[in-house]
Amino acid sequence: METVRVLQIKQSVFANNDAQADKLRAELKEKGLFLLNLMSSPGSGKTTTLTRLIEALKDDLKIGVMEADIDSDVDARTIAATGVKAIQLHTGGMCHLDAAMTRQGLEGLDSGDADLVVLENVGNLVCPAEFDTGAVKNMAILSVPEGHDKPLKYPLMFQVCDVVLINKIDVAPYFDFDLETCTEYIHMRNPKARIFPISARTGEGVDAVAAWLKQEILEWKKGE
Amino acid sequence: METVRVLQIKQSVFANNDAQADKLRAELKEKGLFLLNLMSSPGSGKTTTLTRLIEALKDDLKIGVMEADIDSDVDARTIAATGVKAIQLHTGGMCHLDAAMTRQGLEGLDSGDADLVVLENVGNLVCPAEFDTGAVKNMAILSVPEGHDKPLKYPLMFQVCDVVLINKIDVAPYFDFDLETCTEYIHMRNPKARIFPISARTGEGVDAVAAWLKQEILEWKKGE
Repeated sequence: METVRVLQIKQSVFANNDAQADKLRAELKEKGLFLLNLMSSPGSGKTTTLTRLIEALKDDLKIGVMEADIDSDVDARTIAATGVKAIQLHTGGMCHLDAAMTRQGLEGLDSGDADLVVLENVGNLVCPAEFDTGAVKNMAILSVPEGHDKPLKYPLMFQVCDVVLINKIDVAPYFDFDLETCTEYIHMRNPKARIFPISARTGEGVDAVAAWLKQEILEWKKGE
Repeated sequence: METVRVLQIKQSVFANNDAQADKLRAELKEKGLFLLNLMSSPGSGKTTTLTRLIEALKDDLKIGVMEADIDSDVDARTIAATGVKAIQLHTGGMCHLDAAMTRQGLEGLDSGDADLVVLENVGNLVCPAEFDTGAVKNMAILSVPEGHDKPLKYPLMFQVCDVVLINKIDVAPYFDFDLETCTEYIHMRNPKARIFPISARTGEGVDAVAAWLKQEILEWKKGE
């Protein structure tokens, strides 16, 4: 392969959001509300996956959903059709949510005695990873058509995620996607990341994710 | 469909980048260097498309490429293998390039008497759209697996683009993607946007894009 020159461009500095996130997390712990932050590129299947997860979990858990988008309300409408409480957050062009914005969303959702609230973050593999929302767990989705090299190019997203769903495995035969290589790249970024191959369209693999999430919530409620 | 409450979250304010962009554009005009800003989500096929465009154009134009990524240099290496001058820009976590960063890239590329330099922006459908890079034209790629609703959710990207390539049309039979609806949504955002369906993998449709780009460069050089 060719060698090329690499030029490092300066990074901007973000205001400290971590204290806000810790404060929110502590308050949610008091209330027994498990917040899950769901992140991915545009179009990797966040809403479809979430619909499947809700189907698998809604008999056991009271669920709320916050759909963050720059514009449109199609996702919140899709989620509301499942019967759970849903709110659409418009970010006014912002590319991510921080803890203060997540707090506004939770107040707007008025989730009451929910066990689980899912924040579907803005479709973006870069910025959302930089801001702790106050969530207990971060979940990322990477879909087969995006390619298995994404953990190389977007390191932070995979570093901050507790679990990665590899979505659209039903179309894997039509793409040059190698699950083993992808797993290796994800574990380079985060050796502890749990990885679940799924197809949100067919439902394949979703039960395993639901079981994992239910277990995480149980252990968290027990105070671990 | 269900109705849901919409909560508007405050937008942050960006520093003014437009003057820098206009200055860069004027300087590039002096030099006769046409800068094309290529944007898309992660994994929609920017680099593969660019490789195809270079194949179609490199006998007629002297081309340089700047590959912006947060990490890795795989894309610049892929481009360099085509024989054109390429540089990898690492953004240090930044989610976009502005005009000042683009200028650093151009200086690093040292493109000499190139006719065309392509900036492959960070894979992100949100932030790059907010910053004028100084480019003459903005090109976006939307790939079939991402879904035809993306112009609804990411309005600014489609507003600022002169041309949109709908990539991966070879796998359209396996996805719920409607080209007519997608075209309509793009034109809602930008009635003047040129739209080209392509498959960077098979090469289908790429010649039409190359012809369009060559014509744009010719007209621009003539001072239009």
